[in-house]
Amino acid sequence: MHKTRTLEQKFQVDFHFNVIFTQAVFDIENPLLYKLLVEKKTVSKSKILIAVDSGVINSHPHLKEKIENYFEQYTNIQLQDDIIQIPGGEASKNNESHVNTILERVNHYGIDRHSYIIAVGGGAVLDTVGFAAAIAHRGVRLIRIPTTVLSQNDSGVGVKNGINSFGKKNFTGCFASPYAVINDASFLVTLDDREWRAGIAEAIKVALIKDATFFAWIEKSANALTNRDLSVMNELIYRCADLHMQHIRNSGDPFEQGSSRPLDFGHWAAHKLEQLSNFDVRHGEAVAIGIALDSTYSFLKGHLKEESLLRILDIMVKLGFKLSHHHLTGKVIQGLEEFREHLGGQLTIMLLEAIGSGFEVHTMDTSVVLEAIGYIKKYNTQKLEA
Amino acid sequence: MHKTRTLEQKFQVDFHFNVIFTQAVFDIENPLLYKLLVEKKTVSKSKILIAVDSGVINSHPHLKEKIENYFEQYTNIQLQDDIIQIPGGEASKNNESHVNTILERVNHYGIDRHSYIIAVGGGAVLDTVGFAAAIAHRGVRLIRIPTTVLSQNDSGVGVKNGINSFGKKNFTGCFASPYAVINDASFLVTLDDREWRAGIAEAIKVALIKDATFFAWIEKSANALTNRDLSVMNELIYRCADLHMQHIRNSGDPFEQGSSRPLDFGHWAAHKLEQLSNFDVRHGEAVAIGIALDSTYSFLKGHLKEESLLRILDIMVKLGFKLSHHHLTGKVIQGLEEFREHLGGQLTIMLLEAIGSGFEVHTMDTSVVLEAIGYIKKYNTQKLEA
Repeated sequence: MHKTRTLEQKFQVDFHFNVIFTQAVFDIENPLLYKLLVEKKTVSKSKILIAVDSGVINSHPHLKEKIENYFEQYTNIQLQDDIIQIPGGEASKNNESHVNTILERVNHYGIDRHSYIIAVGGGAVLDTVGFAAAIAHRGVRLIRIPTTVLSQNDSGVGVKNGINSFGKKNFTGCFASPYAVINDASFLVTLDDREWRAGIAEAIKVALIKDATFFAWIEKSANALTNRDLSVMNELIYRCADLHMQHIRNSGDPFEQGSSRPLDFGHWAAHKLEQLSNFDVRHGEAVAIGIALDSTYSFLKGHLKEESLLRILDIMVKLGFKLSHHHLTGKVIQGLEEFREHLGGQLTIMLLEAIGSGFEVHTMDTSVVLEAIGYIKKYNTQKLEA
Repeated sequence: MHKTRTLEQKFQVDFHFNVIFTQAVFDIENPLLYKLLVEKKTVSKSKILIAVDSGVINSHPHLKEKIENYFEQYTNIQLQDDIIQIPGGEASKNNESHVNTILERVNHYGIDRHSYIIAVGGGAVLDTVGFAAAIAHRGVRLIRIPTTVLSQNDSGVGVKNGINSFGKKNFTGCFASPYAVINDASFLVTLDDREWRAGIAEAIKVALIKDATFFAWIEKSANALTNRDLSVMNELIYRCADLHMQHIRNSGDPFEQGSSRPLDFGHWAAHKLEQLSNFDVRHGEAVAIGIALDSTYSFLKGHLKEESLLRILDIMVKLGFKLSHHHLTGKVIQGLEEFREHLGGQLTIMLLEAIGSGFEVHTMDTSVVLEAIGYIKKYNTQKLEA
């Protein structure tokens, strides 16, 4: 009775971009950005819109002038309008207004799919501007210039963007590949200590689940990192970005259409802690606590040796992370369901069986999560007393 | 001085979906939709949200009840909430409110990436609901059930979605592949004559640039089509959808990141006419006028024989299309720049060198566009007098 005919559609989309490490990208003598902007030129004068994190402008008072001077020397690329300032920090992702600001400028200046939007800033600004670029004309070329450790080694080199809605992190967004990413080490110099440190958490995370040698390197480099050695930090970022990019490339499912999982060890609790603290706890700081929690859980469930757990907790304390927080209570357990819901399908949580080796489970024993919280609080008190 | 290091990222994303032709998809005995919903189940009870075009509900007063009965017979899939009604027609894409309605429901009912959103309706509703599905959690599975000729043979089988912003058609949107498409012929029966006819324009378009045999088949089938022969219309839809899907698959650039062009013969003027008429002219009707304009332009520039042009104009008149409109004046020429801007890069317009064979140009002679408008108006008057 119900006869059917089927047309099958099957195709692949290629994505290709470079993450280029440089210094002083807007230095008048640095040709890198200019070369990127003209390599695939299809019109006589490429239009460029720039959005910069307000926090970056505050730390670099001459940046706007530098950017304007940089573009003035070229006649075949054209900076549109004043530089757009976007307030930095996760809270600025809590409403649509900054996405709308970008869309309005795209409309006003006739920015098209072959024009460029350059986003300069921390992860939140890159997520916001990136989302606007992805949905304007179904995708305007986006060049990310991440300015924090966290965005240079993690979010800025990935394929996600978006904003928070209904109090849920990254509820609204899409997968989209940037046109290019420029990691400029000179932006790291002005980061405050909290920001400098926070980004190291993602490096610890990826080392713990993928690369024991990298973890040992981080242990060895702890003093240099706390002493703000820029070249050591740059090496950490390079290795961490490389591991993240390999994961996206080799997962077989970069846009997570099936059940493949992003590299989100420690993140279910981290997202919830950020939310519970109204984003007072920064993402990297929350990830450090989340790593402590899931590493301790791994130990309590018999998967990880206590000796390995203590190496993990110790390096984080040495780097200055606080492993406890007054919002780290049973309330975070609600984060498990929100995490499942965001990724869809079955709950999947990564645990550790050794440093450098993660594995997945599909249920979490909430009484052991509570026990792990107690373990961390006790460890923390002992450290403070020592 | 400015040393650089580069990490290269390169990957492919696979997209795969079927367009399934059936009748009476919500008939309690038709297992097609149910099978689709359970084939990749990752949770014990899949959640489903359904949004239906108000126009479809008006034409099918028992549809809501039928849908509810359909889902009630299964215990492992769960319809959430009442069926959401979305007003149909292009004008409903002019603000964000319907996208927000869907996002709110996604949040409220805990719809996740492995849940399903089913959109039932014409192209505008599919575009709106599809955009919401694409940006909720970075992509919830979308099943499109197009209910018009136009959406079954063109937009509904493609990879675009979005809404209008700043008075510009599809300004805000993204590329995203549906989970599946179900073309249900029984929805075509209740279309009014305008809607039934409008969708034929996209079939004429694709035949003109790709497939002379299909064009001849449409000429031969004109009487059956105007007499509302459902099986002939279904064949037209099947062949047209197939040609569109082949183009997406074989273009080498389905998400139009480079300079590849969609199948949009006649569309630069069509988009502008829709806008100038405040969407009184429906998309398919505007496309028919756009086809007449660019075919006439092709003839006036010496690319197309007048005999072929007259075949094109004659079949459209025979099918009941109006080839002129009081908004078809020099004002449409502004549509050229808006069309260029939306696609980006160089202006690229498809013209005809013969029936079944399109070619691209990068400039349009505006005086000849005006001449073509005059030619069509004269042709139209002669037809009316005959």
